[in-house]
Amino acid sequence: MKRAVVLLSGGLDSATTLALSNQGGFEAYALSFDYGQRHHLEIAAARRVAAFLGVREHRVAQIDLRVFGGSALTAEIPVPKNSGGATGIPITYVPARNTIFLSYALAWCEVLEAADIFIGANAVDYSGYPDCRPEFISAFEALANVATKAGVEGAGFHIHAPLLEMSKAQIIQKGMELGVDFSLTRSCYDPTSDSLACGQCDSCRIRLEGFRQAGIKDPIPYAT
Amino acid sequence: MKRAVVLLSGGLDSATTLALSNQGGFEAYALSFDYGQRHHLEIAAARRVAAFLGVREHRVAQIDLRVFGGSALTAEIPVPKNSGGATGIPITYVPARNTIFLSYALAWCEVLEAADIFIGANAVDYSGYPDCRPEFISAFEALANVATKAGVEGAGFHIHAPLLEMSKAQIIQKGMELGVDFSLTRSCYDPTSDSLACGQCDSCRIRLEGFRQAGIKDPIPYAT
Repeated sequence: MKRAVVLLSGGLDSATTLALSNQGGFEAYALSFDYGQRHHLEIAAARRVAAFLGVREHRVAQIDLRVFGGSALTAEIPVPKNSGGATGIPITYVPARNTIFLSYALAWCEVLEAADIFIGANAVDYSGYPDCRPEFISAFEALANVATKAGVEGAGFHIHAPLLEMSKAQIIQKGMELGVDFSLTRSCYDPTSDSLACGQCDSCRIRLEGFRQAGIKDPIPYAT
Repeated sequence: MKRAVVLLSGGLDSATTLALSNQGGFEAYALSFDYGQRHHLEIAAARRVAAFLGVREHRVAQIDLRVFGGSALTAEIPVPKNSGGATGIPITYVPARNTIFLSYALAWCEVLEAADIFIGANAVDYSGYPDCRPEFISAFEALANVATKAGVEGAGFHIHAPLLEMSKAQIIQKGMELGVDFSLTRSCYDPTSDSLACGQCDSCRIRLEGFRQAGIKDPIPYAT
């Protein structure tokens, strides 16, 4: 069985990505990050998803992205609500986050002698983040092939981003088809003190709209 | 003044790189990593070098590369000594380390609105690490330009690796010319309990040979 490192945030995209990695016959090594995010609940969600879908191993790397600040997800900046009309890159963008996450996945791949990484990046409902685009995925694959022992001496890396061109509704439908239990996932950037999704941040709004378009009821509880 | 993030390990390469960044008229933001390395002394060296050469700010990011193991620098694997005849990528290679370090530098750049990173990677006396080669630097620059807000909306990133084609002796000569005090730097992978360089690991041997070729006495103390 080929090994793959699967980035698992605990949201619905990465849960569906893990299900696709399993369907593709990979032995999954799930990787989550405790990076000082205000929506810390997602780590518990990642653990539930990993246990439910089945992985060979699940590690949570402690990394401190608060050292630089600059994002509403890691600094003391309010998360925007109901920002329907906003354009450009939003304040919830965490500087270079996916680059950092993929770098760690690459490091684990080298230790595992794996050459496949799965990431649930999505260019359609991507909230305007530059590191969720196809150009980014291709550039990271090119980097991985020159950066590492496995890339230089081995068969080369492949970065799988199977959701890249899918809408949120399509991702939800694909996940349902593969038996993902979306009640285990969490997407909210700014959950209430009693762990309810806010229903108003960009991430909640995109999620709710995806379920609506898919004609399925979102199984998680919301504050509003 | 243009801002630049300068990766500063506390060794002689990064000290010379910081001096070159200062000479180039950049305002330096020095970045070091506490990554569970056994040669932890290098962080103290980085602080001395930053203070001596002058930087706008110096941050030490706590990151846990031990989560994956796989290297003699971060796991319980002995550091090879006097391995003159060995070929291939050595066990002191830390998986994807420079990729991870540059990813953090990129994140800080985004917050600072800087578009320049300095790294002391060196392809000549590079110990066989894949992430110290020109192909790696070019691939990271290409990645930076699609990965980030600044790359997408701004003038683009430049990754400066001014030592890339220099021999260790040339780096030492250049550093002396720019007034670097090499007595502040540390390079040993496996210092003794009383903080002396071992004189026998790859890093010590390359350093000592560089000083010998440059015709200069290495100012730091050695155990042997």
